Parts: sequence; C-alpha cells; structure tokens
Amino acid sequence: ELFNWVEDFFQKGEVSQPAAGLRFTITAGPTQEPLDPVRYLSNHSSGKMGYALAAAAAELGAEVQLISGPVNLAIPAGVNGTQVTTAKQMLEACESRRSTTDIFIACAAVADYRAATPADQKIKKQANQDELVLKLVKNPDILANMAKATTDKNNPRPFCVGFAAETQQVEDYAQDKLLRKNLDAIVANDVSDNSIGFGSDENRVILFTQHKQTIQREALPQGSKLALGRQLIEKLLAFYKEQKTL
Amino acid sequence: ELFNWVEDFFQKGEVSQPAAGLRFTITAGPTQEPLDPVRYLSNHSSGKMGYALAAAAAELGAEVQLISGPVNLAIPAGVNGTQVTTAKQMLEACESRRSTTDIFIACAAVADYRAATPADQKIKKQANQDELVLKLVKNPDILANMAKATTDKNNPRPFCVGFAAETQQVEDYAQDKLLRKNLDAIVANDVSDNSIGFGSDENRVILFTQHKQTIQREALPQGSKLALGRQLIEKLLAFYKEQKTL
Repeated sequence: ELFNWVEDFFQKGEVSQPAAGLRFTITAGPTQEPLDPVRYLSNHSSGKMGYALAAAAAELGAEVQLISGPVNLAIPAGVNGTQVTTAKQMLEACESRRSTTDIFIACAAVADYRAATPADQKIKKQANQDELVLKLVKNPDILANMAKATTDKNNPRPFCVGFAAETQQVEDYAQDKLLRKNLDAIVANDVSDNSIGFGSDENRVILFTQHKQTIQREALPQGSKLALGRQLIEKLLAFYKEQKTL
Repeated sequence: ELFNWVEDFFQKGEVSQPAAGLRFTITAGPTQEPLDPVRYLSNHSSGKMGYALAAAAAELGAEVQLISGPVNLAIPAGVNGTQVTTAKQMLEACESRRSTTDIFIACAAVADYRAATPADQKIKKQANQDELVLKLVKNPDILANMAKATTDKNNPRPFCVGFAAETQQVEDYAQDKLLRKNLDAIVANDVSDNSIGFGSDENRVILFTQHKQTIQREALPQGSKLALGRQLIEKLLAFYKEQKTL
C-alpha cells in the first residue's frame, strides 16, 4: 500500500499543471431537437472528442465545466458535468457561465435548425399522406454568442475555440468560420473519412489560430481522441498565454 | 470446479425450453434517416425492450435473430444480431427472413418518414435564411409488410406482434393498429409516463391478442424490461401454440 502511495505520488508529480487557475467551459455531443414527444432531429456525434478535451484540461489543472448533449459516456474524473438536450438549453447553460469562463471550446454538434412548432402529442402517420413538410427555424448560434465582443467588464469575452466538422472544402470552411465568428482558434475535422470522426476512437485534425486576422495553420498527426485532446489543450493553452502577454 | 459444473447443470436444467425449434425475428432500437452526412431524423428508443425480448426468447430455447437500429447495447447471449441504420435497411433485413420466421416481433421505433432527397454533402446553414422547409416521404411499413396475408407456401405469413408506443389514447390506438395491420398481438406502451418507457429500465404494458377480430386484453404489472420481456415471450408463446392447434 505504501508502494502504491509512493507510485501515485510520483506519477501525479510528473503531470505539470499549466492550466491551474483557468476555467474551461467545453460543449460536447449532439443536441436533439424534438418534433414531437417521440421524434427528433439530431447530428451524429459520439461526444468522445469533447469528453477527451475536458479530461485533458482537468488533468492539466483546469477547472472544467462540460456541457453535454445526450451521449453514452461518463463525465471524466475531475470534471463538472451538465446534461442538456436541445440547442436552446445548451445556449442557456453556456451563457450562464460566460462571465466565469476563461476558455470556451465549442465541440458539440449543435443542430442548426429545430422544428418551428414541436407537437405536444405524437404526430399520427396519415394513411392518405405520403409526404410531410416540416418547417424548421434556425437555432441560436452558441459559439457566435459566446465570442461576441463586449465592453461590459463584468461579462468579458472568453477565449473562444470552435470546431468545423465538414465533408468537403474542410480547410476553407474552417478558416471562414474562424474569421466570421471572430474566434481565437478552430479545429477542422474531415468527417467524410470513416476511419476517423463520428463514433471512431481516432481523429485527425488541423488547428487554425487567429490573431488580428492573421491565421496560423498546424496539422496534428492522427491519433486517439484522448491523445489528440491532450495535444489540443496544450497548444490552445500556449496560444492563450501568448495572447495574454501581447 | 466440479461444484460449479453441477450448479450450472441444475440451473440450466430449471429453465424449460418451450420455444425450442421456433425461429424468432425481433426488431429493436430506433432507425436513423439521414438528411445529409451529419444530420438525421430519429425516434427515442434505447433498444432495451427489444433486446430483453430477444434474450428471453433465446433463454426459452428459440433461434433468435435480432435486427437492431443504432443503440448502445450488446447482443444478448445466444442471439444472432444484425445492425441496420435506416427503415429501408430494416425492412430488407426483415423480408429476407420472412419465410424462415415463425414469430415476428416489431419492437423497433421505426421512423415513419425519411428525407425525400438526402444530401451527399453537409447542407451549409444559410446566413440569410431563418427558415428551412424539409420535404419528407413516408417510409415502408415493415410490420404491415411482414403481416401481409400470402397464399405462397414458400413464403408464409409469420405470427406477427407489434408495439404501440403512444402518448395519448394508448389503448384505442393499439387496438386499431392490431386490427388494421392484421396482427396476432400488440403490446401497448404509454410513453408519456417518464417513469417507464424511453431509456428507462422499467416498463408497464398492456398486451392485446387477436383471433378472428376478437380481442383479448391483459394488463401486465410494471416491472423491469428484462422481467417483462420474459413474461411477454411466455404469453406470446402460449397464444401462438393455441392458435396452431385451432
């Protein structure tokens, strides 16, 4: 037992705590937008990448709040978890933490649209109706809301990191989103490749960072989502600290 | 070790095999209908009830094929599993087994509608477009297809059991579906009650059986989905055997 204790002590001693004192808010998983009590609109997302980022930030000493849509994963050790279902609920959970967040990472696959008028009761299939037209309205843009510039000192803008999961022109779309939403960084993810992305334990991403409209590009080697999570957090931390000293 | 062997022998000896020689095909879980490579339409369904039915039928000696939509459950011991995503794929898997199925149980929450034209690439959110109209078309009715009367001796109609998951008028809708689709039995499930149904480990159902338009009703006591699965399989088996001797 003494041996275990000594071993634990030295193992923990090896992990430096560069994120100590920093507050992360990380979103993960899909959102589900109800059409009625049984049907919903959603996006593919296992939540693995967001959970890996949360675990890595906590390991490096950060105070981490994970805001997660419906997934089948356990909240990692040392991380606070909040479960939500819809984009609106995720927005509320994020905004309530905006003023106490240093680094915001939007890894969730938020549904862009929701039903204009979800039904209270199950919609019955109509025997004589082969087509159904569904009216959707745009969901709030959580990341854009978090990244909005403010002059309010009590509600400062956090350092904001987005994800761009695309099936084509991945790098172009990612850089456009980085500038358009005024983010500090964006992680680009080609989800058309089945060996990585949705549900997979592996991923391969490109990290773009922005400072005063100047973009830096860095391709990270393919690896497990856990290893990539660790690498991304370390790189984002370095860039965050560099920004603070500029 | 000898003791374990003796124990196993007697424990297995206790389970009678009233389903020996019978071939079950059971559907479970939701279907997912893609709108594009990242978005889909689905129904709430953990798959637990269908997996419990499959496990129970196998325990009672049946040869069981489980055709499952995307869920986070392991195929039960002694059960053959086929994984599908869409309603069309589920229909194909069921129809390919129709002629070799004695008892068909449709427990899956199949999406009634799918996108008329799923997109090959991720649909980009339009900045200037606050509304999106989605055109859906009706999916094939798997249960009605399986329950269709045939005169073809090589492709006989299996004994067909449906599920009715409703949020209101549960018993009325269930009996209507039982007669309209010419089923042998239907299990009615009130999914508006959060303590049972979706995701829950417990359930409370009413079993309706039909013979020549005469309906029998039996309310089963609330219990775990595993216990209910066992009870339902036993009751369905008894009714199936009764029908065969009529």
